[in-house]
Amino acid sequence: MSSASDVLDLLRRRGQNPDPAALASLMEGVAAAPEALAGPEWVELVAPGADSELTDALTAWRREIDRAGDGLEASPAPPGRLADLRAELARRGLDGFVVPRADEHQGEYVPRGAQRLAWLTGFRGSAGLAIVLADRAAIFVDGRYTLAVRSQVDTDAFVPHQIPEDPPDAWIASNLPKGARLGFDPWLVTVDGHDRFARACQRAGGQFVPVDANPVDAVWTGRPPPPLAPVQPQADALAGESSESKRARIAAIVSDKGADTALLTAPDSIAWLLNVRGGDVPRTPFPLGFALLHGDGHVDLFMDRRKMPARTLAWLGNAVTLAPPDELGPALDLLGKVGKRVLIESATAPVWATSRLQAAGVTIVRDADPVALPKACKNGVELEGIRNAHRRDGAAVSRFLAWLARESSGRVLREIEVSDRLQAMREQTGKLRDLSFDTISGAGPNGAIVHYHATPETERRLEPGSLYLVDSGGQYRDGTTDITRTVAIGTPTAEMRDRFTRVLKGHIALAMARFPVGTTGSQLDVLARYALWQVGLDYDHGTGHGVGAYLSVHEGPHRISKMPNNVALQPGMIVSNEPGYYKADAYGIRIENLVAVCAVEIAGADRRYLAFETLTLAPIDLACVEPALLTEAERGWLNDYHRRVREIVEPQVDAATQAWLTEATRPI
Amino acid sequence: MSSASDVLDLLRRRGQNPDPAALASLMEGVAAAPEALAGPEWVELVAPGADSELTDALTAWRREIDRAGDGLEASPAPPGRLADLRAELARRGLDGFVVPRADEHQGEYVPRGAQRLAWLTGFRGSAGLAIVLADRAAIFVDGRYTLAVRSQVDTDAFVPHQIPEDPPDAWIASNLPKGARLGFDPWLVTVDGHDRFARACQRAGGQFVPVDANPVDAVWTGRPPPPLAPVQPQADALAGESSESKRARIAAIVSDKGADTALLTAPDSIAWLLNVRGGDVPRTPFPLGFALLHGDGHVDLFMDRRKMPARTLAWLGNAVTLAPPDELGPALDLLGKVGKRVLIESATAPVWATSRLQAAGVTIVRDADPVALPKACKNGVELEGIRNAHRRDGAAVSRFLAWLARESSGRVLREIEVSDRLQAMREQTGKLRDLSFDTISGAGPNGAIVHYHATPETERRLEPGSLYLVDSGGQYRDGTTDITRTVAIGTPTAEMRDRFTRVLKGHIALAMARFPVGTTGSQLDVLARYALWQVGLDYDHGTGHGVGAYLSVHEGPHRISKMPNNVALQPGMIVSNEPGYYKADAYGIRIENLVAVCAVEIAGADRRYLAFETLTLAPIDLACVEPALLTEAERGWLNDYHRRVREIVEPQVDAATQAWLTEATRPI
Repeated sequence: MSSASDVLDLLRRRGQNPDPAALASLMEGVAAAPEALAGPEWVELVAPGADSELTDALTAWRREIDRAGDGLEASPAPPGRLADLRAELARRGLDGFVVPRADEHQGEYVPRGAQRLAWLTGFRGSAGLAIVLADRAAIFVDGRYTLAVRSQVDTDAFVPHQIPEDPPDAWIASNLPKGARLGFDPWLVTVDGHDRFARACQRAGGQFVPVDANPVDAVWTGRPPPPLAPVQPQADALAGESSESKRARIAAIVSDKGADTALLTAPDSIAWLLNVRGGDVPRTPFPLGFALLHGDGHVDLFMDRRKMPARTLAWLGNAVTLAPPDELGPALDLLGKVGKRVLIESATAPVWATSRLQAAGVTIVRDADPVALPKACKNGVELEGIRNAHRRDGAAVSRFLAWLARESSGRVLREIEVSDRLQAMREQTGKLRDLSFDTISGAGPNGAIVHYHATPETERRLEPGSLYLVDSGGQYRDGTTDITRTVAIGTPTAEMRDRFTRVLKGHIALAMARFPVGTTGSQLDVLARYALWQVGLDYDHGTGHGVGAYLSVHEGPHRISKMPNNVALQPGMIVSNEPGYYKADAYGIRIENLVAVCAVEIAGADRRYLAFETLTLAPIDLACVEPALLTEAERGWLNDYHRRVREIVEPQVDAATQAWLTEATRPI
Repeated sequence: MSSASDVLDLLRRRGQNPDPAALASLMEGVAAAPEALAGPEWVELVAPGADSELTDALTAWRREIDRAGDGLEASPAPPGRLADLRAELARRGLDGFVVPRADEHQGEYVPRGAQRLAWLTGFRGSAGLAIVLADRAAIFVDGRYTLAVRSQVDTDAFVPHQIPEDPPDAWIASNLPKGARLGFDPWLVTVDGHDRFARACQRAGGQFVPVDANPVDAVWTGRPPPPLAPVQPQADALAGESSESKRARIAAIVSDKGADTALLTAPDSIAWLLNVRGGDVPRTPFPLGFALLHGDGHVDLFMDRRKMPARTLAWLGNAVTLAPPDELGPALDLLGKVGKRVLIESATAPVWATSRLQAAGVTIVRDADPVALPKACKNGVELEGIRNAHRRDGAAVSRFLAWLARESSGRVLREIEVSDRLQAMREQTGKLRDLSFDTISGAGPNGAIVHYHATPETERRLEPGSLYLVDSGGQYRDGTTDITRTVAIGTPTAEMRDRFTRVLKGHIALAMARFPVGTTGSQLDVLARYALWQVGLDYDHGTGHGVGAYLSVHEGPHRISKMPNNVALQPGMIVSNEPGYYKADAYGIRIENLVAVCAVEIAGADRRYLAFETLTLAPIDLACVEPALLTEAERGWLNDYHRRVREIVEPQVDAATQAWLTEATRPI
């Protein structure tokens, strides 16, 4: 007897008359959402007020669907899939097809049913793209994944190329046959991306052809439906500003840009604007959907009603009209009929949208997502929530570090058990909704792989005399955390201490920086690198990324980076401070705290200045610090920081952790 | 009896039969060029091989013309000039006219005959613009000149406005009457500038109308003709690369940009490309002219043949065709007839050129001046010349500083006598061609005026307990120098020492920086500001500008600045390192050395790194340094620098200076 019939029985016994097909479809959607962020609240979507018996039956049903498999575990992918796709393309009169990793929202995580690149090739990275032609296929990945692609993908079928050195448009220009029709899904290609591809096809004498339905979906048996995680209110007590106020504020910005309506395609922008959270993709608590924000603050929200508990519908109120996702097209047509001007962000909006808007006669205003900057500037309530999340998270990380110090002195640990323990410490706070990203747990040489993901095949032992790097974070309803600590296992070498201390000098230079209003993260970046550059070393990643408030752990529009960025840092912005150093095949070092931009009063200042408030609270391993390399000011910062860590963490932790903490935060 | 008839007599006695009118015209041109850079070589233009008697007569004649006056000394300008211009505009059917400070080449210095803004208004700043309408007129200057404009200009006639806050296009949009025709000289307005003005006129419902001949010239009685300073070869022993090699190299760059020919409008680009120098404007040793560089390396040079001594014509050789300036137009027409594509830099090229090219059917390629970047990267021979110039200049400055220390302890000096003494020290090297810019000699509060120019009315005394700031430089055939030193007169206050030391920390952070290939000056800028920012202070100017090799003291395309700049620093580039701090009405501090970008070998480096070689050699006033504020590394830099200054300067100077030098460069 199946859980499905149990559920149907229990519902009927409660006097309900469920439609078995509709219920099964709903459960497929529920099961397509990751478990963590959906929380126990998902049951509300199926059977509001379910008792424990019904909840158990529903849970069992969900697990069965999870186990059913969608073909995404196979890596490399079975060769038949590529053959099936080519046959489908031939049926449609296409000579090739572009398969990006991205979904309609261009986000970091995509739901399982949109993981077409992984299904087709086996590649599991967070960015990439395949191009399939009749007689050849290529896969394009960046430097992070040049090794991974060779183990995950059949490179005879898909020849790997590294971007940006060897980009897809160059490949198209030299491989697409003259007169060929290269297909693409206009939902998955951005407006800006489309221009590059179309030019490349033109150079090859071919055509770049949008398709109505994605041919990968036609041949993917068992493809999961769109996820249905419950959409939940984010209370004003956490959001700090009502959705009504936000909508009016952003609508005014849209008007200032000369547009009547903005099309929002970024799920975190929509979640922030409407003060809701969701769980359709892993690690990031937003629901997937699209929205139109009108000049009067009214929002048309295109989202599956089945993931809206009744209380969320009530929370959204009358100024938000909920419509099925497939009504977005007709809604855009209508904007054209009434002569509206529509703002879109061409770097992230699907070309489907501009095509439809242009066909409808809409005037398109290309500009940045109008929500991005206001969302990045956290209000006082959000900041207080974020500080609380870091106090809690810092205690969990400190307990973990104390455990690690104790345990690693007695036995040799392995990467996965260590990161599992860290996750357990966060779960023991009772407030963790999910990790904010997959933990990077890298021992020795694995620490030097910047986007390392430990697997049973790759994990290493935390050997004495090595460094262990752990980059992790939590999603709490009051805030999103992200912290990296590098810990000496046993005694570090003098070189390790030198490198660690230089990374720390960069971290401190940024943490202590005061800077005039108007300064960008690009201007500050060098502060984090200077001490490393002086000895001919650098790190190949940005120094800081924005972080959401119980939203994406990576958000814009600001950043601290070598790349030019014209967004000035503004009070309330959260940004990571994470310089590093990586010695290939040896060790990796990164010291990451999150900081908030804040106004600072300086007596006699000649203009308004900003500074960083460090939010993250966990000891930095003093065993790795070479005090002689620090200036007095730097030592002062480190000692002040450690005193603050001790004061805040101590009352939250057990006696053993307290004892360790006293030592770990001693003044140097 | 006049010098003119003396000269005619002497020439006839030498068996020549000069045309008196042509000779007088030539002498007018000669006299329109500044004396310094022309040097004694100008005589060659009139009478090659003149004996001392003839030279004396020519010199006397030249002096008489100098004394004749061109109306440029009047400040404010007599009101009749504005009335005359308005009458001329009415005659031509124009409702207004734009009078920029710039000439056809958009350079920092313009010849006297092109100083239309100064003649019309009395304004002497290096940037500005007037707009004259029938019933009102406005003058636009930047923050450097908001005070000066009020003392130099009749502000009832010309209402001052500050740019960029209050720009001319906004004024046009709200002041130009509907249907009005606002005239402009298309030689003096750039392609980019024209777009902004034309849009503003359109907004006002008016027209922006090019004129054939400048109406200011029609009413300016006594306007000097274009200057005729002798064009002189810059020997390969100084230039380090033959013009032939340069022309081939740049022609290839022009081809890579998709153009057949480049129009060069920047005189320093032309001088570098052809390995010649001149003296048509003060402080900058280039001849004014235009050039077309063709794909085969051939150059058409549009320049008055009368300023070419025979040896320079020979030096230019067969691959350079000399043509009169007014043949540029027909030459552009010809490029259109043969279907050429022409590269121009739209930020600096006169709109006259694009109009003519478009009319001729030429395809215009807008790109950066192709000479700018290669010119900025000095070769080994140029660098050796530049080092020599700095050794010589450093000795002169050190002699001056020693004199100042001695003299100011005995009596109270004034700004002009002090800068005159500095100039005399440079002249005593026997190699000075000219200053590289007007010396900034600012005592006490005058030091806080960033672009201060001392006059008998404004100059202050160097009082005990004050700071004295002097920013100056020399033009030598082997290099151009630029140095700022700030000196304590008597005992500085603790605040002065604190601020000076913070400026010094910024200077040292930049001087010691090592940075990966690809780094821009914008990325490094913060290093020079960090120590000031920490106490809420900043300075409102760039940190570093490029410097030519016996060319402009300000050149691009690189710079060190808060403003984004995407030109990476490259080996051989010269750039100034000049952080400062200015306390209004109290004192100014700036510490400026020139540095050269150089490759640096670092053992174990993870990529290629660059660093700065400090070129400038003169003591930094230790009386202003607070050693406790310096780190050990910073003290180390300062002591090393002073040891190098001492080693190089000591052998070049008198015993008194040597004694002072020993003390001034003592280790701290």
